[in-house]
Amino acid sequence: MKAMYVEEALRPESNLGVMNFLNEIAERYPKAISFASGRPAEDFFSLEQWLSSVPHFVEHYAFRNQLSRRASWNKISQYGQTKGIIADLIANQLAADEDIHCDEERIIVTAGCQEAMDLCVGAVCRNPNDTILAIDPSYIGITGAAARHGVRINPVRRDGDLLANIAEAYSFAEAGGERPRLLYLVPTFDNPTGTDMSNDERTGLLHFAIEKKILILEDNPYGMIRFDGERLPSLYEQDNDGCVIYCGTFSKTLCPALRVGFMLLPNKIFGSHADATSFGAVLLEAKSFVTVNTSQICQAVVGGVLLAENGSLKRLITPAVELYRHKRDRMLQSLCDHFSDNRQDVKWNVPSGGFFLVVTLPFAFSMEDAEICAREYNVLVMPVASFSLTQRLDTRVRLSFSYATQEVIEQGVYRFSRFVHDRLLQRSASV
Amino acid sequence: MKAMYVEEALRPESNLGVMNFLNEIAERYPKAISFASGRPAEDFFSLEQWLSSVPHFVEHYAFRNQLSRRASWNKISQYGQTKGIIADLIANQLAADEDIHCDEERIIVTAGCQEAMDLCVGAVCRNPNDTILAIDPSYIGITGAAARHGVRINPVRRDGDLLANIAEAYSFAEAGGERPRLLYLVPTFDNPTGTDMSNDERTGLLHFAIEKKILILEDNPYGMIRFDGERLPSLYEQDNDGCVIYCGTFSKTLCPALRVGFMLLPNKIFGSHADATSFGAVLLEAKSFVTVNTSQICQAVVGGVLLAENGSLKRLITPAVELYRHKRDRMLQSLCDHFSDNRQDVKWNVPSGGFFLVVTLPFAFSMEDAEICAREYNVLVMPVASFSLTQRLDTRVRLSFSYATQEVIEQGVYRFSRFVHDRLLQRSASV
Repeated sequence: MKAMYVEEALRPESNLGVMNFLNEIAERYPKAISFASGRPAEDFFSLEQWLSSVPHFVEHYAFRNQLSRRASWNKISQYGQTKGIIADLIANQLAADEDIHCDEERIIVTAGCQEAMDLCVGAVCRNPNDTILAIDPSYIGITGAAARHGVRINPVRRDGDLLANIAEAYSFAEAGGERPRLLYLVPTFDNPTGTDMSNDERTGLLHFAIEKKILILEDNPYGMIRFDGERLPSLYEQDNDGCVIYCGTFSKTLCPALRVGFMLLPNKIFGSHADATSFGAVLLEAKSFVTVNTSQICQAVVGGVLLAENGSLKRLITPAVELYRHKRDRMLQSLCDHFSDNRQDVKWNVPSGGFFLVVTLPFAFSMEDAEICAREYNVLVMPVASFSLTQRLDTRVRLSFSYATQEVIEQGVYRFSRFVHDRLLQRSASV
Repeated sequence: MKAMYVEEALRPESNLGVMNFLNEIAERYPKAISFASGRPAEDFFSLEQWLSSVPHFVEHYAFRNQLSRRASWNKISQYGQTKGIIADLIANQLAADEDIHCDEERIIVTAGCQEAMDLCVGAVCRNPNDTILAIDPSYIGITGAAARHGVRINPVRRDGDLLANIAEAYSFAEAGGERPRLLYLVPTFDNPTGTDMSNDERTGLLHFAIEKKILILEDNPYGMIRFDGERLPSLYEQDNDGCVIYCGTFSKTLCPALRVGFMLLPNKIFGSHADATSFGAVLLEAKSFVTVNTSQICQAVVGGVLLAENGSLKRLITPAVELYRHKRDRMLQSLCDHFSDNRQDVKWNVPSGGFFLVVTLPFAFSMEDAEICAREYNVLVMPVASFSLTQRLDTRVRLSFSYATQEVIEQGVYRFSRFVHDRLLQRSASV
């Protein structure tokens, strides 16, 4: 398993360094079963076929822009608009698949969702005391984007009343002379915990953001990968005042090699159309000096697939969602089977979608433990502590069920259970 | 002509704002002949064919990594190494086409050369008083990257002795408490002026960089587009001590929609292998939080073309270089024809390659003049002042001959000459 985001050891003091440490473990034990990486399953990758849908997009683009076929190929091969050329198709897909009805003019296509996060942090947090609120633990992408811009993250505790915790984190930041400007959230099937936020939490967060004039960065990579339960409306859908920036990606629904994501901006920001317009302009200028524009070849692949699928990705990803559901179920069953002696001590959640579940152990699980798992038990898992914004001890372990095959999942959970059993034996022996 | 880098008006005080102003003019006068944009000619774009070379790369990648064909497709469709997957082919191409012999391990593939510039500025200028030295006027991409990172640029005058000017700019910066860390250069066929630096200038710059411990960012988008004169060795080739970061792109040789560029790092930095290694790690970490990795689809297209061309792009771009030569010649001839009455007053350079030439007028040419050209004479040209780091008046105008057809070039130069004639008449009338 190769390093997913970072490849070499740096800044060991931060959790970016922790990620590197884990990537190194993965490199050192290449034969270990990996539940560490959040890669999508490859069973339904069809890149060769998807590439063949590019001419379909070229024709659509020709028609829409009143160009000849040749001129359409040429224009797609050139430099292009910073905001991208598939906003119409993304807007249609959002309406069909996510019930988000938006103005296509508010979409900026980005080089993956990570670029959207980087641009957003830079555009929102412009003063030295501007900070980001994020739930602890949080996806490493926001930590990295914040670090790049020298912006501090104010951690929000997840246990108990989320809204009270956010208010507490906000007050604490304010008392320290900081001004939280951005609230980063993965409301649906969070990474690392797999949590699906309740509707009360969603609406409460919106009220809080409006009251405090904080922009919400709603990151939704896993929304379409739902196994059970009702789909809850995104924050963007429920935002009437203009405080939500929605980010999406085609990495999980199609494939990561596209590096096509997008951000959808509100029509007004805290009621102001002018502010929304100038905010969009700031983001576009910043993007023009990072990646100029998102590869129009990759946009054409996404566009071609969306056209071939009549605007929705639901049909295309149904088999993949089924597969992920089976993998989750296999992991849950394996956990039941191999932790049957420890059901009092070892617990786990049952995510309704996404790529991850979290096992809670009766002891803190550290980086060193992750290395022991890899070296002695041949299984790679992620300490939830590695996503911590506070470097605190954590008894939780993130297991990804997205990439490994079902047989491998069974075997990997067994190996992980051996580690836990042995550790519990050591503990009782030493008592 | 659409906005190439930036689309909306922002920061009117800076020359980034100037670019927006010019893009707006281009939008307002869509029927004007454009010599403003540095877009490549589209005559030899073959994207449909280039896409069909992807399977060629997939096989190469399978062979190199001992994978099945299916596994190779899957691995290319996934997240991948931050540094990219075509370093071997880029290293071969650099050896074949640019006489640069390098260690492929020192190559980082980027989402266009602009990302390389952004990463470099961020990685090199880390302290508040760190600055960039750049020749005035300079390509807007470095200005934008510097602005994003809040890094100041120390302008270097181009007229007279370049080395003395650089030393002067350095001393001036140092006296002001600044520490220049990076020297940005396009040594071969500079944008905006088209200048090809002499070999004495190149070696002198290297000595200066070593002495002052300044890293050189050598940007070479136009090196292969040479019409006449001897190719001079790149700074990277001549760098024995480790001070040159070389940047390349496939935007001008293949097409911009690829968004594939790269940076080639020195094996050691000012003699230190350890510093070169940790510098590479800093760049990779930063990239992992901007674009994660460069689209492997786009890398596969570039890789496929390089394989199909046996490692060199010379054969493929020969017709394009011939076309650019004819366009340059047509522009030079048109200038001779239409400025025959003003040969004392109006001068221009004869670039040996690249996309641009510069006309020097007997009066300052401003943004307002550019708008007058567009509105009243239906021709779009770029004031060299718009590339200025100092906002000073400038009598020069950049004319791009890369994009317009030869007939259009003739007509556009005529229109521009009418503007100049009329302005000169007004001047003599008002004297």
